[in-house]
Amino acid sequence: MVGMSLKDLDQAQFDALAQETRQRYDELKARDLNLDLTRGKPSSEQLDLSNALLALPGEDDYTDATGADVRNYGNLAGIADIRELWGAALGLDPANVIAGDSSSLNIMFDLISYAYIWGTNDSPRPWKDEERVKWICPVPGYDRHFAITEHFGFEMVQVPMTPDGPDVDAVAELVKDPQVKGMWTVPIFGNPTGITFSPEVVEKLAAMETAAEDFRIVWDNAYAIHTLTDEFPANPNVLDIAARNGHPNRFWYMSSTSKITLAGAGVAFFASSKENLAWYSSHASIRGIGPNKVNQLAHARFFGDVDGLHTHMRKHAASLAPKFEAVIGILEERLGGYGVAEWTKPKGGYFISLDVTDGSATRVWELAKDAGITLTKAGASFPHGVDETDTNIRLAPSLPPLDEVRTAMDGVATCVLLACVDAAQR
Amino acid sequence: MVGMSLKDLDQAQFDALAQETRQRYDELKARDLNLDLTRGKPSSEQLDLSNALLALPGEDDYTDATGADVRNYGNLAGIADIRELWGAALGLDPANVIAGDSSSLNIMFDLISYAYIWGTNDSPRPWKDEERVKWICPVPGYDRHFAITEHFGFEMVQVPMTPDGPDVDAVAELVKDPQVKGMWTVPIFGNPTGITFSPEVVEKLAAMETAAEDFRIVWDNAYAIHTLTDEFPANPNVLDIAARNGHPNRFWYMSSTSKITLAGAGVAFFASSKENLAWYSSHASIRGIGPNKVNQLAHARFFGDVDGLHTHMRKHAASLAPKFEAVIGILEERLGGYGVAEWTKPKGGYFISLDVTDGSATRVWELAKDAGITLTKAGASFPHGVDETDTNIRLAPSLPPLDEVRTAMDGVATCVLLACVDAAQR
Repeated sequence: MVGMSLKDLDQAQFDALAQETRQRYDELKARDLNLDLTRGKPSSEQLDLSNALLALPGEDDYTDATGADVRNYGNLAGIADIRELWGAALGLDPANVIAGDSSSLNIMFDLISYAYIWGTNDSPRPWKDEERVKWICPVPGYDRHFAITEHFGFEMVQVPMTPDGPDVDAVAELVKDPQVKGMWTVPIFGNPTGITFSPEVVEKLAAMETAAEDFRIVWDNAYAIHTLTDEFPANPNVLDIAARNGHPNRFWYMSSTSKITLAGAGVAFFASSKENLAWYSSHASIRGIGPNKVNQLAHARFFGDVDGLHTHMRKHAASLAPKFEAVIGILEERLGGYGVAEWTKPKGGYFISLDVTDGSATRVWELAKDAGITLTKAGASFPHGVDETDTNIRLAPSLPPLDEVRTAMDGVATCVLLACVDAAQR
Repeated sequence: MVGMSLKDLDQAQFDALAQETRQRYDELKARDLNLDLTRGKPSSEQLDLSNALLALPGEDDYTDATGADVRNYGNLAGIADIRELWGAALGLDPANVIAGDSSSLNIMFDLISYAYIWGTNDSPRPWKDEERVKWICPVPGYDRHFAITEHFGFEMVQVPMTPDGPDVDAVAELVKDPQVKGMWTVPIFGNPTGITFSPEVVEKLAAMETAAEDFRIVWDNAYAIHTLTDEFPANPNVLDIAARNGHPNRFWYMSSTSKITLAGAGVAFFASSKENLAWYSSHASIRGIGPNKVNQLAHARFFGDVDGLHTHMRKHAASLAPKFEAVIGILEERLGGYGVAEWTKPKGGYFISLDVTDGSATRVWELAKDAGITLTKAGASFPHGVDETDTNIRLAPSLPPLDEVRTAMDGVATCVLLACVDAAQR
């Protein structure tokens, strides 16, 4: 970073900065804002991009590629049309892809629930009958992932994220413990860091030996094609890579259109080995008869093909990129000189991860809250909501309009500076 | 029944009937039919009634009654518009009604899954930690219900259906056992009998004392308004009745539009006490963020109000009633004289339950199969698929066109007569 660090300031400069920041914060509070950067929700502008879906598939259109009537019961695996499109989009064999209802989170919960009650296809016993189940949680990570494993009483073991993905050496060490049954990941443009796993990290995760024969990696590819630039990320076929490495059942691969079309009314996908899919279906077929295939057909019609999907994603990028630029620009401009914070500069996804001086994140959150700016709670990206260093804040700039993002981030920068100045008080 | 019973025939008459029936069966086989009466699927004609839904809510319509944008994440309880409509349709307070995705079966499975893993709000411990869980299954009943309790390893205890509903005295006796944790029901136009529980049966189920404080009745009101006549059935508010009797949390009340609009792409509902709903949501909120609210809004727009819903149901009745009349008419005409079978004559729902001479149901199913008529497997309406008396066959006349229903049922009558003549062979 260019510019002076806080500790390079002499006392007079420090006092002047402290006073100026406090004044700026008072002015911020006086503005009586009501802004929200908490969750990775698409904006109205983004949702408008998919409004055609609200009238699809259309009154006369209810037949899938196989000639089946999507209006009636059946077809637990989902319709061929959308499975083929999604396989093509992600570089997966459609035979390994199941299309479900709207929520991949639902499917993840169910996978763990089925493994807990009945065991996976590779389990010596149901996970409920294990003395203890441990789960690897790269941090910072996705709070809703951690909430699931917490709900099932699993012990969450943290590993740090590096710029290339989770610390795979730490992971490889942990999986020597047979109680370690699985791992959360968001491999592309991860939540909240925006980090994309390097090919080496992917290969090691696929290849490593694990003590538990039923070890599973939840490959939550939620931002597979959610670029902020002109380029789409490479999506490794981890099912093939794992099979080549002798671990064909390692990955539970998730995807969804939630942040592509209509959040909460999209189509979710589960991709895995045929054996894993058969296991999943053996339970899912008792749970129900089939997914909402009308919505699947509507999505297939809406995208048309992978080109159509990419064209659509570029419209999202056009809406989102300026917000990310604003956040990063303001952080750079307001905080770049003081060495009090670091932040990621993602090329895709929905989040920016902000690290402030140790022990200050909660204070930043409180200051922002008092100034009418709601941030994701400090610690939210950590298991049990506890960030032991109290450093990390997840910024979600997608929902508010650009001018609100600017206003909010300028306020956040003031709060960060005030918290850090206070912490460094001499 | 009017007419001669099989046992009233002298030897010559019996032989003549046997010969005629065998010849008729041979002719049936020679026709090389391919007909299916297996599942309670709506016909294309019925699905066409809801084609408008395929283009709803429409490109500019994405705001619910509270002003919320249904395109975005959130609202686990579902949108007010459809909860209010459904509450009005069933005579329930909308505050007790949650609207979900498409499948009530999914919700039933989840309820039992949550109770199994974490216990209900009234459970001393999770059901998985009980030495044994027993479940009351009125028979004949719904095969997918029984498949769920079988999957969880519960012991299924059968009670017979009477014309007024399940034998409540038998039920009241069984629930003195603290291991009996619940009971399946289809209270209105039940599957497969078409029987509607009498007010006395409902009251007793709500009022009876149970040894298990977490005893639950799954009130699967799948055919709540699925009349075949001009009249809609009374839908008792079992939540109120149970509360008045001091058992506010007794009922898990299910409903869905699967056989009203598009099977598999409708809206499912879960109604219960506020305490039960809070318990459900405490788990469902970890499982996901919210249901497909776009589809809920589409349904609210499609029906408009309860009158619109009733008008729509009358169209279903106009399509279904002739099929039921055909089935019952052919059974009456072909078998009425011989005392070899009895059948229900439902005023609503999707099924007719056919009881043949003890030990003949499997034979009827085989004969029909060999003649190209697929019937629901004998025993399907019993736990584990085992009907100990081998008596019951579930007839589902909704899917095929009327002329196919006639052809199939005439064939079924031949098969029943042949099986029973063979069984009575002198």
